[in-house]
Amino acid sequence: CLSLQMQTVTLIPGDGIGPEISSAVMKIFEAAKAPIRWEERNVTAIKGPGGRWMIPPDAKESMDRNKIGLKGPLKTPIAAGHPSMNLLLRKTFDLYANVRPCISIEGYKTPYTNVDLVTIRENTEGEYSGIEHVIVEGVVQSIKLITEDASRRIAEYAFEYARNNQRSSVTAVHKANIMRMSDGLFLRKCREVAEGYKDIKFTEMYLDTVCLNMVQDPTQFDVLVMPNLYGDILSDLCAGLIGGLGVTPSGNIGANGVAIFESVHGTAPDIAGLDMANPTALLLSAVMMLRHMGLHDYGNKIQTACFDTIRDKKVLTKDLGGNSKCSEFTADICRRIQDLD
Amino acid sequence: CLSLQMQTVTLIPGDGIGPEISSAVMKIFEAAKAPIRWEERNVTAIKGPGGRWMIPPDAKESMDRNKIGLKGPLKTPIAAGHPSMNLLLRKTFDLYANVRPCISIEGYKTPYTNVDLVTIRENTEGEYSGIEHVIVEGVVQSIKLITEDASRRIAEYAFEYARNNQRSSVTAVHKANIMRMSDGLFLRKCREVAEGYKDIKFTEMYLDTVCLNMVQDPTQFDVLVMPNLYGDILSDLCAGLIGGLGVTPSGNIGANGVAIFESVHGTAPDIAGLDMANPTALLLSAVMMLRHMGLHDYGNKIQTACFDTIRDKKVLTKDLGGNSKCSEFTADICRRIQDLD
Ligand SMILES: CC(C)[C@H](C(=O)O)[C@@H](O)C(=O)O
Ligand SMILES: CC(C)[C@H](C(=O)O)[C@@H](O)C(=O)O
Repeated sequence: CLSLQMQTVTLIPGDGIGPEISSAVMKIFEAAKAPIRWEERNVTAIKGPGGRWMIPPDAKESMDRNKIGLKGPLKTPIAAGHPSMNLLLRKTFDLYANVRPCISIEGYKTPYTNVDLVTIRENTEGEYSGIEHVIVEGVVQSIKLITEDASRRIAEYAFEYARNNQRSSVTAVHKANIMRMSDGLFLRKCREVAEGYKDIKFTEMYLDTVCLNMVQDPTQFDVLVMPNLYGDILSDLCAGLIGGLGVTPSGNIGANGVAIFESVHGTAPDIAGLDMANPTALLLSAVMMLRHMGLHDYGNKIQTACFDTIRDKKVLTKDLGGNSKCSEFTADICRRIQDLD
Repeated sequence: CLSLQMQTVTLIPGDGIGPEISSAVMKIFEAAKAPIRWEERNVTAIKGPGGRWMIPPDAKESMDRNKIGLKGPLKTPIAAGHPSMNLLLRKTFDLYANVRPCISIEGYKTPYTNVDLVTIRENTEGEYSGIEHVIVEGVVQSIKLITEDASRRIAEYAFEYARNNQRSSVTAVHKANIMRMSDGLFLRKCREVAEGYKDIKFTEMYLDTVCLNMVQDPTQFDVLVMPNLYGDILSDLCAGLIGGLGVTPSGNIGANGVAIFESVHGTAPDIAGLDMANPTALLLSAVMMLRHMGLHDYGNKIQTACFDTIRDKKVLTKDLGGNSKCSEFTADICRRIQDLD
């Protein structure tokens, strides 16, 4: 272990329960002796030169240097014109792929079992272009922008991901029957990229059909790749199948190894500071991060301990159906990690 | 009964299993002595003057005269440039509201029970505008069009529907955090219309949140109203919750009483002509039609008989888990209707 170089990661604890679940993750990483040094930064959008919203320079500088970030929940700004921090981060670091593995957690009961799929969402364009106009009074248009480059890039990411994670199929999700040109372009790029991955099965499916089939039998899906808005929808739908955002990890991946891993649940201000929060989503995001950094052994150890604690049902936070505190849940995971050694 | 005026309805049997399930519905209507006379018409898109796709004049004329139609599945044209018949029908008759009640069917097991909600989809604009451009090579835009008039009209329809069907809440589904102007306009109209319906609770929810909550607990929803694409997705998702398109009815409503009710499943060419098809979706759509025409008693009688047959589990088609023929399933429903008299 000593031979492993420590790596520095930018930690954005976030708002509400963010600091508590971040410190839970840090404790668990310590117990696992994961070779990670944390560099804490706060992000709140600030107005830069020319009135453009930007993230604070010291957070930007930290991410630029470390390339890898872990982020807790950020409160949604309510002021008009204030950007969503999530969108600003995706934009600032060109995090073009949002990846969400949705895997049933044994012992945490939902209407579904054996869910094991990954949604890969194009994170930079589509319906999120931000281009809108009033044409005449009472008539508004929003522009969905699909480019060849972004479509190819996300398709390539999906197939690479499938190959590197021993997954056997990729499904492109689209509405090219309606948006023939834009979704058509997206689909064409997926088909082209698929040609280079003969080891991975490629299928295409309409978004509405995916939703219908998903709630009837999610086990038929493996890796799904799709434009931005469809990903927004499907990733949340799939999170719902395995127990919600409290147990679902997420990663936003950019070029050259840059990535931010995050819990996608809210800040839960009602329970903030009360040692009641569930750190699972942030912890599993941190596990994704370890794998992304090539530290699979640490990731696996932490994930096993977390799943064992949940399966065991003795020490669970309230949202998971127990009545333990965040700190007790965290301690139980740490204990299991030490037992594993 | 004799005092009731017979009303004529345009029947579009459709392709594949369409004719079989249509004749099942006709038999059941006969058993129920429903005061409906059928006028059969085929619809296949034809090229009219100026190369515009249109439905055959005799089908158009029949619908214009009768105002009410019942339609089986139509095969999806595969020729490039050929329009979807569904879209063409919506357009031809300005069927601006797609209504899908999703109600758990007792005895037909799915992961959910007690689902009882209705999706109301704006059916004419949004992402279905058909306006798309190549901006430069490799960059495509699709235009989502939201108008004040169409948004107000669908919101009014949703609230009227809620009031007339003893429903207590309407949820507007949107992504106005992203499409601030277009979904913003849609949402504003919903809010305005809500002011006039103080007896109905109004809520707003992001589409992604609806999807997540829907798969976790669909019983929290009642009437949902939304722009076109979101409705396409959610109506299929909700159909999945109660057993799929084989048991989900659908109605497309226009102004001045014009409406087409339809089964939204496919043509199932593999079992066409084999007396194996399940007529439930078309039958329940025909029940919606009867209610739309004010013939509630006939509608209720038929629905009760259909649900009794399913609950009883003795005479079920294959897709419903049994091994009876379409004709046997139909006869069982007819028998129950006669017993009810
Ligand atoms: C917060 C919001 C802007 C965001 C989105 O719509 O993308 C969220 O739903 C997500 O999925 O990260
Ligand atoms: C067939 C297709 C054009 C249609 C749509 O996308 O609207 C279908 O999915 C529907 O919901 O009726």
